Amino acid sequence: MVITSKQNPAVKELASLKEKKGRRERGSFLVEGVKMVSECAACGMEIVRIALREGYEGERLPYPTLELGAEVFRHISDEKAPQGIVAEVKIPCCAPEPPQKSCLFLDGVADPANVGAIIRTAAAAGYEEIYLADCADPYAPKSVRASMSGVFYTKLMRGMREELFEALRGIPMIAADMDGEDAFSFLPPEKFCLCIGNEGNGLSDAVRKRAAYTVAIPMEGRMESLNAAVSASVLMYFLKKNKEKGI
Amino acid sequence: MVITSKQNPAVKELASLKEKKGRRERGSFLVEGVKMVSECAACGMEIVRIALREGYEGERLPYPTLELGAEVFRHISDEKAPQGIVAEVKIPCCAPEPPQKSCLFLDGVADPANVGAIIRTAAAAGYEEIYLADCADPYAPKSVRASMSGVFYTKLMRGMREELFEALRGIPMIAADMDGEDAFSFLPPEKFCLCIGNEGNGLSDAVRKRAAYTVAIPMEGRMESLNAAVSASVLMYFLKKNKEKGI
Repeated sequence: MVITSKQNPAVKELASLKEKKGRRERGSFLVEGVKMVSECAACGMEIVRIALREGYEGERLPYPTLELGAEVFRHISDEKAPQGIVAEVKIPCCAPEPPQKSCLFLDGVADPANVGAIIRTAAAAGYEEIYLADCADPYAPKSVRASMSGVFYTKLMRGMREELFEALRGIPMIAADMDGEDAFSFLPPEKFCLCIGNEGNGLSDAVRKRAAYTVAIPMEGRMESLNAAVSASVLMYFLKKNKEKGI
Repeated sequence: MVITSKQNPAVKELASLKEKKGRRERGSFLVEGVKMVSECAACGMEIVRIALREGYEGERLPYPTLELGAEVFRHISDEKAPQGIVAEVKIPCCAPEPPQKSCLFLDGVADPANVGAIIRTAAAAGYEEIYLADCADPYAPKSVRASMSGVFYTKLMRGMREELFEALRGIPMIAADMDGEDAFSFLPPEKFCLCIGNEGNGLSDAVRKRAAYTVAIPMEGRMESLNAAVSASVLMYFLKKNKEKGI
């Protein structure tokens, strides 16, 4: 049966996941589009249900499935050109734990597209453990989309700074900051935590104080900073390469 | 006199600059916010006029200045939280010319925020000559904002691919592509042109065919690609560093 009312309780639940409050209440988030939904299923995320737009002709997945009228589907979708498939997925429960490998600390990154793009690079560069304090919600639709499945392949640990510091006890923190030493000639310790700050204000004092090292990306001319996702990505790759191949 | 009508001809002209058609017709673009407008003036861009929101208390600049009512100012502004100052600035006339240094070729980059973020990194990493074929307009408000003044410090040459290739004759082109060799162990020639493709489809066949080298950023796990601005930025910095310090 095709659901055609926005007042339908299931539709209201799905639509609520576009907002932080709804995600918190239901403990789940939205994954949209053919590729991401199938990757999400393939990597063992817990899919609560699938919503399809009436007439959807792609492959069906073995989960409880709702069929929605076009208008109602547009209402729950966050895409400009929706492909007609959305999944409600459980947010994995990740209490902060010490990292197994070199990891990432996001300190007040406020733009969900930046959070998502950073998660995307982190998954590709091998920084699968990500600590987030005071950041945009990584499970917001914009972030999930920008992460291009990165949210499925990383462990996202959110918490208060002090709580995250506790999990990171003993791990040298490398702060990314304009005043740091040249990141391109910096040889990082075997296992470290790279810290990236807010788009406008940089790192919090709490993180600055804890940092064992501070590194900067050299810049020419009158440019003062880079996009947060760009800085994070350039640093993730340079530190990794310097550690593996030397400087 | 404060202008309070959206029908005022000057207001209509300013508002038209939010669209490509308006920018093409007037040959100018909008720069918004205190910092970017003052940097724009400081670096010698040709400012046509300034528009201030009624009650603006910041510094006044020595250009023809309009004062707009709050509602009218919001109409011409592209910001969510406008600071109350906008400049109309002439688009520099940049016919494609051979590059002086290593440079960048953007081949179908479609998202203005990506185009802007790439220009921002290019200005910081020292790739000041940028060739753009079939890209989002770098003078769109989203791109200008994402470039963080980078559009003032770079030379943006737009044209058809063949026309740009002509200007780049004799310069080895390095294509960024998933199937390329490891960019981190790649020693680039003294002077080169790094080519970055479309977000979804990568480089055009025309650019692929012309490329002397193809490089890729190594990726782990199941990630297949990075954000276009991230890839471009990581590659710009790695090629620069490899050229200067060796691999």
